[in-house]
Amino acid sequence: MGQSSILILGAGRSATNLIDYLLGHAAENQWMVTIADLWPDAAERASKGHPNARAVAADLSDKNILQGLLKDQKVVISLLPAEKHPMVARMALQQNVSLFTASYVSPGIQQLDEQVKKAGLLFLNELGCDPGIDHMSTMELMGQLKSEGAIITGFYSYTGGLVAPECDDHPWHYKFSWNPRNVVLAGAPGPAQYRYQHSTRHLPYPRLFREPLRVDVPGVGMLDAYPNRDSLPYTSLYGLEDIPTLLRATFRYPGFMQGWSVLVHLGLTLNHYRLEAKTRTRRDLLMEFLPPHYGSHPEQALERVLSIDMGLHGDQITMILDQFRSIGFFESIPLPDSPTTPAEMLEHILLAHWSLLPSDRDRVVMHHRADYERNGELRTRTATLDLIGKDATHTAMAQTVGLPLAIAVRLFMQGTLMVRGVHIPTREEIYRPILRELSGYGIHFKETDTEQLQDPFIC
Amino acid sequence: MGQSSILILGAGRSATNLIDYLLGHAAENQWMVTIADLWPDAAERASKGHPNARAVAADLSDKNILQGLLKDQKVVISLLPAEKHPMVARMALQQNVSLFTASYVSPGIQQLDEQVKKAGLLFLNELGCDPGIDHMSTMELMGQLKSEGAIITGFYSYTGGLVAPECDDHPWHYKFSWNPRNVVLAGAPGPAQYRYQHSTRHLPYPRLFREPLRVDVPGVGMLDAYPNRDSLPYTSLYGLEDIPTLLRATFRYPGFMQGWSVLVHLGLTLNHYRLEAKTRTRRDLLMEFLPPHYGSHPEQALERVLSIDMGLHGDQITMILDQFRSIGFFESIPLPDSPTTPAEMLEHILLAHWSLLPSDRDRVVMHHRADYERNGELRTRTATLDLIGKDATHTAMAQTVGLPLAIAVRLFMQGTLMVRGVHIPTREEIYRPILRELSGYGIHFKETDTEQLQDPFIC
Repeated sequence: MGQSSILILGAGRSATNLIDYLLGHAAENQWMVTIADLWPDAAERASKGHPNARAVAADLSDKNILQGLLKDQKVVISLLPAEKHPMVARMALQQNVSLFTASYVSPGIQQLDEQVKKAGLLFLNELGCDPGIDHMSTMELMGQLKSEGAIITGFYSYTGGLVAPECDDHPWHYKFSWNPRNVVLAGAPGPAQYRYQHSTRHLPYPRLFREPLRVDVPGVGMLDAYPNRDSLPYTSLYGLEDIPTLLRATFRYPGFMQGWSVLVHLGLTLNHYRLEAKTRTRRDLLMEFLPPHYGSHPEQALERVLSIDMGLHGDQITMILDQFRSIGFFESIPLPDSPTTPAEMLEHILLAHWSLLPSDRDRVVMHHRADYERNGELRTRTATLDLIGKDATHTAMAQTVGLPLAIAVRLFMQGTLMVRGVHIPTREEIYRPILRELSGYGIHFKETDTEQLQDPFIC
Repeated sequence: MGQSSILILGAGRSATNLIDYLLGHAAENQWMVTIADLWPDAAERASKGHPNARAVAADLSDKNILQGLLKDQKVVISLLPAEKHPMVARMALQQNVSLFTASYVSPGIQQLDEQVKKAGLLFLNELGCDPGIDHMSTMELMGQLKSEGAIITGFYSYTGGLVAPECDDHPWHYKFSWNPRNVVLAGAPGPAQYRYQHSTRHLPYPRLFREPLRVDVPGVGMLDAYPNRDSLPYTSLYGLEDIPTLLRATFRYPGFMQGWSVLVHLGLTLNHYRLEAKTRTRRDLLMEFLPPHYGSHPEQALERVLSIDMGLHGDQITMILDQFRSIGFFESIPLPDSPTTPAEMLEHILLAHWSLLPSDRDRVVMHHRADYERNGELRTRTATLDLIGKDATHTAMAQTVGLPLAIAVRLFMQGTLMVRGVHIPTREEIYRPILRELSGYGIHFKETDTEQLQDPFIC
């Protein structure tokens, strides 16, 4: 143990490629990799009986257990839900262990920066797909443009965890390749914020899915996008303090946002209060969220919400009714009668319809667009990643989340990553070797450079 | 001091009639009334140099100050913001002082019931206008109907703090007769809940103002209404456990809700995050919340939001643009550049337009509708209060909030209110003497009894 030990917290689907990579490098480096998960099966399955692996089934929300696991580790990789990370970070600091996560840096972690530096540790966050590869490929693109003498006037960065087109078999055009809870709660409580033509724009949660940006992605086709959280801090994190326009956004196939905006409008994604415990069907649940003045027939009442309250028309209405029909909302299918939030109830329903089948493949599409000026010319450069997963275990999502983490940990263990403190991968010494190695796994971007494209907000 | 001392926390506008009443009864009862407020002027003005009154300027959020003030009081009346009440309640219990408020009972106060009873104290809440007079008049009406052998099948209770028609001079048809902060945040975070035809209905905040109930109030005319918080607990609090339909709601003049729903839709009532500190005008603020794809002209962009995103038409759009124009949203009027929430910014703007002028009069309209069956007949009984204020100080709101509190405190001080524990005024021994005395102040209800009226949800 000690200077050659790695602890992984969480052995779910997104850990597959991370663990494969680290175990693949474990023997030659004499690493001991401890894989801890609440579920014994998950930890065992992930460790694969590898001689350098140890599986531990443990309740990772128990501080004493966590402390015991952290003892004598050099690195901990946490795939736990983001809200656990401030606690993990404080304990890692106490135990002198460096921390790697794919989650957004919270203020609770950022404030440890000085102490982490002083202890000679590295806490590297936002090191997955989005956030992660998006930051790294953005920094590479920005560095390239700046070195060419370009003045960057607008930057848009989009990422989507999607389903492979040939496995897309229902009218929502979406399957879960990522934590379903995070998908159901995406964007809440909001607002999303971004910069557009030198002005801040605020997009409250109830509008988030109603105003899709339509993006023509080279080699992929038309996708819809919604602004992702707060883009404003990335003006300085990307070194683009004075840029007129900066937006980070999330991709979905066309159609998804229209239907999802209706679930949001009705209130079915709310998570801050509990429904009464009672016996109800999916149809009953929908009725509870429909206005009484549209009558007692759920499909007709929903149609009135769409046309009267949301101002939608013919084909849109037909599509959204199809979407609701496809997840059984007009049927008397029983629901659990324990008290849950609307969001938990919705997640329960969607898991029955949107889970990846064993043979299903997912897809990650990432697309950057930089508008720039050089020698009086207005041009646009784009960089696009389009990655299809192998199957429902080795997903594109697991690769793009797990590999950057794994590569960074290898570099750190081997002593070639010298930076210390709390960071995200926007420094060249971090992102350059990671991007180079990712490319060997098929994770690479194709670029275009053209006359400036039309403002995506002008339709 | 001691058994003849009353402490009043907060001497703002809503305290006027409360203090007048208690000082009017102070000499004959040998009461000492302490009036405490953060602002020396407010406390002094309210005490009016009365020999039985003492004005105290004090920071009432300071626990030590509050403890000192509570010492040797028999009763404390708190007009502080509702979130202060659990703290006031715990300290009142420690100091053996009974508590009277016009605020909703929070779980933090409800759980003190046993201790309050044991200490021989009374904590009487929801004793203002709404909640307050609405509960008391509801209980009287229900008692009357039940004694007549009626089976009550639906109950709707509406209250509105409005402006007197002759002082209604702008297109929102609303002025502040109550805490402006509470008006700006009304309904958030939601959802409103009520029972309709045996089923629970949930109405999320973003929809709250978009689906007005239209009510023809006898002697008043057509008013709009939106569901008020969670009506479900009132089925049992009103002794109507099995009632098919129960709804508590808030009145506004027609037009207000349409405009307000647009402020909500845009995000201008959000209060959970701060805007960046910067120099901006009202027009700039509006632009920050408009979708970029509708262009850079705020009035045109807003018009597109109304027609495209909200599905509104001709006259509605004209009215809402008038409303926004009337509060200067299309003008370059500077705003404070300190960091504030959107809701605080909106409140700042509205205070400049919706404050009562000294000569303005307000209006309180309360309206109950009970649908019932008796001897095979389906009938509706209504009870309506329509009260106009005297001026901007002696408002109908100050009367209807302050007098029930004042009367209850007099009854308690004189030893005729024997109930102990945590209560709201739904018991006959509480509401009967209060309603009788209120009637002498012109606060009384007119009843109608007719064939059953149409379901208000069916339009």
